[in-house]
Amino acid sequence: MSEMKWKTGITKVQPNEIRLRGYRVDELMGKISFSQAIFLALTGELPDAKVGRLLDAILVASVDHGPGSPSALTARTSASTGAPANAAVAAGILSINRFHGAAISSCMQVVAEVVEQTSDEHPVSDAAAEVVTEYLESGRRLPGLGHRIHTEDPRTRRLFMLAEELGLADAGVEALLALQIAMAAEGKELPINVDGAVGAVLFDLGLPIELGNDFFIMARVPGLFAQVHEEFDRERPMRRIHPTDFTYDGPENRSLAD
Amino acid sequence: MSEMKWKTGITKVQPNEIRLRGYRVDELMGKISFSQAIFLALTGELPDAKVGRLLDAILVASVDHGPGSPSALTARTSASTGAPANAAVAAGILSINRFHGAAISSCMQVVAEVVEQTSDEHPVSDAAAEVVTEYLESGRRLPGLGHRIHTEDPRTRRLFMLAEELGLADAGVEALLALQIAMAAEGKELPINVDGAVGAVLFDLGLPIELGNDFFIMARVPGLFAQVHEEFDRERPMRRIHPTDFTYDGPENRSLAD
Amino acid sequence: MSEMKWKTGITKVQPNEIRLRGYRVDELMGKISFSQAIFLALTGELPDAKVGRLLDAILVASVDHGPGSPSALTARTSASTGAPANAAVAAGILSINRFHGAAISSCMQVVAEVVEQTSDEHPVSDAAAEVVTEYLESGRRLPGLGHRIHTEDPRTRRLFMLAEELGLADAGVEALLALQIAMAAEGKELPINVDGAVGAVLFDLGLPIELGNDFFIMARVPGLFAQVHEEFDRERPMRRIHPTDFTYDGPENRSLAD
Amino acid sequence: MSEMKWKTGITKVQPNEIRLRGYRVDELMGKISFSQAIFLALTGELPDAKVGRLLDAILVASVDHGPGSPSALTARTSASTGAPANAAVAAGILSINRFHGAAISSCMQVVAEVVEQTSDEHPVSDAAAEVVTEYLESGRRLPGLGHRIHTEDPRTRRLFMLAEELGLADAGVEALLALQIAMAAEGKELPINVDGAVGAVLFDLGLPIELGNDFFIMARVPGLFAQVHEEFDRERPMRRIHPTDFTYDGPENRSLAD
Repeated sequence: MSEMKWKTGITKVQPNEIRLRGYRVDELMGKISFSQAIFLALTGELPDAKVGRLLDAILVASVDHGPGSPSALTARTSASTGAPANAAVAAGILSINRFHGAAISSCMQVVAEVVEQTSDEHPVSDAAAEVVTEYLESGRRLPGLGHRIHTEDPRTRRLFMLAEELGLADAGVEALLALQIAMAAEGKELPINVDGAVGAVLFDLGLPIELGNDFFIMARVPGLFAQVHEEFDRERPMRRIHPTDFTYDGPENRSLAD
Repeated sequence: MSEMKWKTGITKVQPNEIRLRGYRVDELMGKISFSQAIFLALTGELPDAKVGRLLDAILVASVDHGPGSPSALTARTSASTGAPANAAVAAGILSINRFHGAAISSCMQVVAEVVEQTSDEHPVSDAAAEVVTEYLESGRRLPGLGHRIHTEDPRTRRLFMLAEELGLADAGVEALLALQIAMAAEGKELPINVDGAVGAVLFDLGLPIELGNDFFIMARVPGLFAQVHEEFDRERPMRRIHPTDFTYDGPENRSLAD
Repeated sequence: MSEMKWKTGITKVQPNEIRLRGYRVDELMGKISFSQAIFLALTGELPDAKVGRLLDAILVASVDHGPGSPSALTARTSASTGAPANAAVAAGILSINRFHGAAISSCMQVVAEVVEQTSDEHPVSDAAAEVVTEYLESGRRLPGLGHRIHTEDPRTRRLFMLAEELGLADAGVEALLALQIAMAAEGKELPINVDGAVGAVLFDLGLPIELGNDFFIMARVPGLFAQVHEEFDRERPMRRIHPTDFTYDGPENRSLAD
Repeated sequence: MSEMKWKTGITKVQPNEIRLRGYRVDELMGKISFSQAIFLALTGELPDAKVGRLLDAILVASVDHGPGSPSALTARTSASTGAPANAAVAAGILSINRFHGAAISSCMQVVAEVVEQTSDEHPVSDAAAEVVTEYLESGRRLPGLGHRIHTEDPRTRRLFMLAEELGLADAGVEALLALQIAMAAEGKELPINVDGAVGAVLFDLGLPIELGNDFFIMARVPGLFAQVHEEFDRERPMRRIHPTDFTYDGPENRSLAD
């Protein structure tokens, strides 16, 4: 049945030797971060420690956003009926789609359009203004701007600062900032949301567009597990889960400086 | 409908401020690794950088094990029918159960039994021997030992070395090594597998037993995304996927030292 | 790779001929109902038309129970984020577990216990009383009795009447009724819920216990699709879905006799 | 929180009364088939017994197609790792997508195009020829025709005969037959596959196009349960599942006439 033979370029497993994209996994352990390993697995290339730090910040940014997000509600509802943790988390992932958690790739897409149309003769501000006009005229929502809760997303500012400090902010971040300015010029003052910021930075790290949303899901899986275990530990089965009427009773406000 | 009010201790979201277990997420970004954030989200406590490094090694160890593992085959089969990436990965997670990827918690359990029965008067070697006898007599498989491919799992040795170096190996690692020796004394020379090693180390980090398997899933999600995207990129839809008849054609063997 | 050869006894597919449990599918079409085909697929034996009618009633009974059930809420939340219908329904199925929709098999189990202990010398009333005592003493909830909304479940009465009419009610139905009486004798007057009634009837049809819950899921999948499509058609994406604050605005009360 | 109040038109649940689309469920039980209840739940209208019989045939046609279909392989792989039956079936449903099991709606779409362009002055044969030309020129595959195993799908012939007998075949069936002829005139002699036949018949029953694929999934769920239970009953956990190297050892060929 030779037509069934197939090839893979990710992992090579032999007795007592496992190689990820060519590197022995046991050599990587202790030498690179989980974030670097994620990038290596997905793209085939090992990013340096600076990129690793930026990826860490990207993933830390999206670990959780409270139990009222649709993916958390889904995971908790499933957990509440007695699902094992993996099934509840899988259900949560099935609630990460176009309207929730999938703006990173579409933001990378619009950033790519602006970057493509930018040149020495055609500054980024012009390219961004044209893209904005196009979106407004066709009635589409520009991805990466606006948030239903935050008027200024603190994660965005921090991520851009960090990308700047590490010397990793490039045409993608510039394009997104230009898009925000061009929208404001049309009377729409909107914050850059975290999906937008993450998309712009991943674009500058050279990540293929279709992998953008994966980063949201990978970041959120630990948050979903935390939600599921809290449901198991604190709530009775089959309760009615109100989507907004909850309050926080966790650790008090604290700081790394404390 | 006051009976619906409920409480959560994980994340507090207010306009322009998101706090994970009390810490502002934007403060955490750039200061802690994704691995530290995972531990914080799940347990409520921020581990120091040394623990973070060990967690990184644990998560790096399990990112991928090739396309022949059941979770990868499931994710690829789903992808092959045209599923979006999140659905294919969710399907993959539904193939991580008792017999694949869920040995970490059960290894933590047996390690906990040995540790509990160890005291000044009752050395760990005796406690381990008793637990081994109990398992053998009741015909149960001792979790954490043996692997269907590796006779000596390179990830185990590396993880134990690293835990030792960082001063984080404790009673859990000791108990698992004692179990291995006690099994060998019964004529069963088996390697400690990576799930076992991870379980012993997570036990020493104070992780609750029921969270152990989550670490396997969190580590493997990036690998599942890599498998799914490779399926999208390299294969035609609806192919028959042979579970073993594949060969590796990715990057040549290489080393961080190169 | 001869060790991989394996066998299946469900369906035989050859060019231009598909046989389910030995019968040509095209012969079955038009001759048997979907319910009969379900029983055939699961058990290997084709039930007669009378059994088919009872199976129809069982499946009709559980098609939907409104949007507030956890599986419907899960499916709708997933749909609300933009999931395709199959993924939203899969998420809904992941919310059918021990505490929701999985009482059929456990009711079959307790019914089987009573039937087993019943004999000429030991009437069913005694066997039921002993099982009730056992459950009450060990603090377990007896499956099949009680409902959070209905004080007398109309589906139960109808199903038992129909089983009686068709001459298919047997020891299982008798055992469940005896359990209800034995509970009342202990001061616990509880209605037989639909899961219980279905379980008792499926027991009398000779269905293996481990297949009981499948009937709830198979019956509910059409209801989940209905919920998902209503969510797509009537609601905006990413709405907050209140678990109880909905009202019915569908067709007025009507009857087959109208 | 009045903005959260919402409406549903499917099921009305009150204590001791459950109404599906206006009908008391206990009245429906014993009076209508599961197939009729499915149509009622999805469309809001109760089909008569003749339509019910055709729906039964449609659903019987797709219950199972052997363990080699991607959804069955996915469900079995998940089951093989120890998943509960509902999770394994959910995984199977996640493998029903564009390239497997989702041709019904797209067939209904192309049938609708032909029907729309047919009129007294413009016979169906012309309309079909134009649609075929359009598909061929744009390099798209015409849905509903061709099968990777069957050169003449026995389920198609039977379904069309039955629709004819029941007086329910109409413009949809006519359009699909015209499309087959128009393709043959272009040198492409292809059988109408079961998805195509089902789509044409559902079109004639007035089912909305977006509900077409649901019928494949609803029909296949019992088949997936059968596959999952056979995996539990006959195979050891974590086996390698070859996608084609299985043989049938179930009941011998038999007939309803036996």
